[in-house]
Amino acid sequence: MLLEALYHVPRDKWAYAYDKETVHLRLRTKRDDAEAICVMTGDKYAWDRTFEEVPMKKAASDELFDYWEACAQPKFKRLSYLFRIESSGETVYLSEKGTMNEMPQPPGGNFEFQYIHEIDLFKVPEWAKDAVFYQIMPERFANGDPALSPETAEPWGGTPQRENFFGGDIQGVMDHIDYLADLGVNAIYFTPLFVSPSNHKYDIIDYKKVDPHFGDNAKLKALVDLCHEKGIRVMLDAVFNHCSKEFPPFQDVLKNGKQSKYADWFHINSYPVQVVDGIPSYDTFGFYENMPKFNTANPEVKSYLLDVAEYWIKEIKLDGWRLDVADEIDHHFWHDFRIVVKRANPEAFIVGEVWSDSLPWLLGDQFDSVMNYPFSGTVLDFFNGEMDSYTFSNKIGSLLMRYPQQTNEVIFNLLCSHDTPRLLNRMGEDKRKLKLTVAFLFTFMGTPCIFYGDEIGLTGEGDPDCRKCMEWDPAKQDQELLDFYKKMISLRKENPALRRGQFRIIDACKDDPCIIYERVDAEIHFTIWMNNSPEARSLSHSMETEDWKDTFTGEPVKPDNGKMHVTLEPYGFRILSRRLKQETSVSSGKDSGDAVKEESATVHQ
Amino acid sequence: MLLEALYHVPRDKWAYAYDKETVHLRLRTKRDDAEAICVMTGDKYAWDRTFEEVPMKKAASDELFDYWEACAQPKFKRLSYLFRIESSGETVYLSEKGTMNEMPQPPGGNFEFQYIHEIDLFKVPEWAKDAVFYQIMPERFANGDPALSPETAEPWGGTPQRENFFGGDIQGVMDHIDYLADLGVNAIYFTPLFVSPSNHKYDIIDYKKVDPHFGDNAKLKALVDLCHEKGIRVMLDAVFNHCSKEFPPFQDVLKNGKQSKYADWFHINSYPVQVVDGIPSYDTFGFYENMPKFNTANPEVKSYLLDVAEYWIKEIKLDGWRLDVADEIDHHFWHDFRIVVKRANPEAFIVGEVWSDSLPWLLGDQFDSVMNYPFSGTVLDFFNGEMDSYTFSNKIGSLLMRYPQQTNEVIFNLLCSHDTPRLLNRMGEDKRKLKLTVAFLFTFMGTPCIFYGDEIGLTGEGDPDCRKCMEWDPAKQDQELLDFYKKMISLRKENPALRRGQFRIIDACKDDPCIIYERVDAEIHFTIWMNNSPEARSLSHSMETEDWKDTFTGEPVKPDNGKMHVTLEPYGFRILSRRLKQETSVSSGKDSGDAVKEESATVHQ
Repeated sequence: MLLEALYHVPRDKWAYAYDKETVHLRLRTKRDDAEAICVMTGDKYAWDRTFEEVPMKKAASDELFDYWEACAQPKFKRLSYLFRIESSGETVYLSEKGTMNEMPQPPGGNFEFQYIHEIDLFKVPEWAKDAVFYQIMPERFANGDPALSPETAEPWGGTPQRENFFGGDIQGVMDHIDYLADLGVNAIYFTPLFVSPSNHKYDIIDYKKVDPHFGDNAKLKALVDLCHEKGIRVMLDAVFNHCSKEFPPFQDVLKNGKQSKYADWFHINSYPVQVVDGIPSYDTFGFYENMPKFNTANPEVKSYLLDVAEYWIKEIKLDGWRLDVADEIDHHFWHDFRIVVKRANPEAFIVGEVWSDSLPWLLGDQFDSVMNYPFSGTVLDFFNGEMDSYTFSNKIGSLLMRYPQQTNEVIFNLLCSHDTPRLLNRMGEDKRKLKLTVAFLFTFMGTPCIFYGDEIGLTGEGDPDCRKCMEWDPAKQDQELLDFYKKMISLRKENPALRRGQFRIIDACKDDPCIIYERVDAEIHFTIWMNNSPEARSLSHSMETEDWKDTFTGEPVKPDNGKMHVTLEPYGFRILSRRLKQETSVSSGKDSGDAVKEESATVHQ
Repeated sequence: MLLEALYHVPRDKWAYAYDKETVHLRLRTKRDDAEAICVMTGDKYAWDRTFEEVPMKKAASDELFDYWEACAQPKFKRLSYLFRIESSGETVYLSEKGTMNEMPQPPGGNFEFQYIHEIDLFKVPEWAKDAVFYQIMPERFANGDPALSPETAEPWGGTPQRENFFGGDIQGVMDHIDYLADLGVNAIYFTPLFVSPSNHKYDIIDYKKVDPHFGDNAKLKALVDLCHEKGIRVMLDAVFNHCSKEFPPFQDVLKNGKQSKYADWFHINSYPVQVVDGIPSYDTFGFYENMPKFNTANPEVKSYLLDVAEYWIKEIKLDGWRLDVADEIDHHFWHDFRIVVKRANPEAFIVGEVWSDSLPWLLGDQFDSVMNYPFSGTVLDFFNGEMDSYTFSNKIGSLLMRYPQQTNEVIFNLLCSHDTPRLLNRMGEDKRKLKLTVAFLFTFMGTPCIFYGDEIGLTGEGDPDCRKCMEWDPAKQDQELLDFYKKMISLRKENPALRRGQFRIIDACKDDPCIIYERVDAEIHFTIWMNNSPEARSLSHSMETEDWKDTFTGEPVKPDNGKMHVTLEPYGFRILSRRLKQETSVSSGKDSGDAVKEESATVHQ
């Protein structure tokens, strides 16, 4: 056994309370090194009386490692534990003291999850697990009230430039609310709506006022009310890292220098406030002199921004905040932000924009979720043929093991956005590939988000080309693609297994572009078969039960002598499913699939 | 290179801000696998313009791994980085995306330390780095006011039992303050002082009142004032996990059951409140029915206990809190505790009692330090001959890599306490071994603590025997031992290098009980030579410079042809030192030793 590969720490994503009875434990081993692992658990004050062995299951693998998981439910809230790892006749015990070949004398030296405190539980909003998001840039979605449009607004459908306007507004969204309801999305993420000189509005001048080109505060409230009537939640963009250079307090600093009462609202490194050799003398977003960075450690600034966060929740019954450049703001700020936001709306969804490893914000005291950019990168690369399914499987395994399950259930999965080329462009304008990718999005773990217009075939390269006006002429919309999106959204919404069920890759091989994976809960077992190649393919996998159906057509699909064969068109996919006998079991976020006899997995080089 | 052994995450003890300019980075490799490692750093928004290579140094090793450290000082507070690892001609790059053989195109995919926020800095009190603590159980230190003694108090010096009393009190401590000042300690840690039926007082009835057998609140204030006059800080014991069964709110629950307005102050699992088969129907410390556990998530309880914490700081100018059973209380509580305590006294020292891995509390938002029980275990085992110096070196390396440097500088190092046998007993009553162990304590990193009476040779097995009355008859005190303690305390206090300097083991070998290590800062370089064996030994190590002196005698000790030979008695030690030319350098908590030409290290199997 390769001892250097073993990894467990009694904290963060390796040991965490999933609910008030259950602790999730994860252990890492070298890939294909361990055969069976068991967690030996007990209460440290009554070890013998409470001793229990909990077997671990292999939950994911990446290039180098296997990851094992178990759910422990300590009787007295205190969990003392160590691991017993078995591999080709060798047995190794792993406790906080390290590895041993003999069972040590517990509980001294064990790993400790000291006590499950409900107040420390990482709770995410239930609705977010069931949400399908739709991202709207208000300036580009629909112009419902031309009277509000900027004077320089160009005709709808023109070529987007870095700084031009087309007059999209809140009324435009209200006009098309039935389109969204019909599409099936049940949550909208709006990029910023507040007063700002730009078309993207990530440089804000007045945080408590809707931009007059979009409408006014009452109009925003009317929109949110309308959304709520239609069963659609609303998330806004909180741009708290920086403001516009035109933000009055920063203007005051420009005018009064260090005498300004707002001087400490920003990070002014030297006076006079100026830009020398491209470097502002104050901290900014990137090195953009028009986006001065807030000093969020200043209690006045913090109180100002937390008031903004609370104001919109109360004023318009907001359902969530997406946090722009969240990782460059201090942790103390986000800690208190969560308290304020969850007090105003316990079901508010908090999604941070963090491009790199985000675990420090995802331990229960800051965000619920993050924009899952690494997901986009991996999925697009795979469905563009840049890796085989074995490599893809490893990268997906690695993503799933990045965060605790609470976050995995609501991580914000996007395939493109206002900052990237359009999905169709990213898929080489091959609609078959786009559909396969979208099918993966809607059958994977996490909360999916569609960028407005992707569903009707809008194209565009990077910013500003990806920010084209939404196409509202049905004749110019790709109706077939729109129907496909509706079908996938509806499938996801009808099946809790696709939202909360266990995910597992059951077939992925070296040099093979095809993949088979499953989603399963206590009621239904899905297997998803994907031919990620330009040729027709027949995929095969051992299947012990006979009662599979094609999910969309309902027709039975039977295995042949215990082996299922599924024929697929180039870039085609098929979703099979079977109903399971429902069993009642303690829900612990992991047991949902335990009712199923596991199909064997074939994931190898 | 063994890729499975590489470990780095851009958070907690692996990447943290040490001060507002400096980020400490750590990387783990398989032991003896890498030859040179460099961190490639830059600002993600201006990578080329800010690119810098920072070499890493091997900071510690354990059985399986080497640990490398570097200090990076990003120009614009944002640090993007990856590692270049070299080993026998092979070069591997490690970024957030994993390992590669080619230099990847940064900054995409790099590790990110997004921004150094001063508010998120982990700051520990400076005085704690310089402190030598003395632990006092007030009931057993000195009886200064017999009128206060419990009626059942036994004559001073009798045999301690679980429940007997000897009448120690606050006046007793005041009477002996000059003894403590003369010994040289500059901080006292008192076990609990508040109203409680027991002699140890870990079951408290009134948190705002000094136990009448000890004195009263005014008396405690007088004691703290006196300590402060003598340059001695005072830390009290916060028993916030549980109270006494006699605590009035719990009595109210016993009386009124679920109707009690205090019912939610505790974790009552079922009514009636009772004990069945040894298990109380309410949560307790362990399963002790006389110590009901507080529900610290209840805002009333939290506010009550935080008020207690603040009250004593303000009332008596308390310098610190030691937190009993700290790991079984919720993190939200400790987060707010730190805010309240540091607001009342920014220099207050917060030390948690946690027996296992304590990192979750040591990230800057909860504790400053923890009781370092794993240190005691390792050190006692080594100086009792239960491991060779190679194994000891590995275990010490592992301890140093557990926590960020801020904690390492103030971690509460103890060799015994009121919960364990006395040090002399733990060392087989061999005074030579005891002295060697104490010499290690006072020359190692972290804040040392002496358990009252160890310095004059008090003996005792486990509780209650270790809680004997302090011996005040000079003829019965081991004066020679007392002088030794004074000498070691004084050496530590006179030399910042022994408190804040870099620590490194420079000679430790398999099957050898002897060890050589160094402490070094910009001014002085110490090498400590220890013969941890029952025979006289001569230790040798390469030394390039000639100007070494015996630290205690001042006599020159010269190497012979580049090799230093030091002859030691059984269980003897010697401390050599040389003055260094002082150089001014940016202090970053790591550079202190850079002025020294490093002596080569010999740590091998």
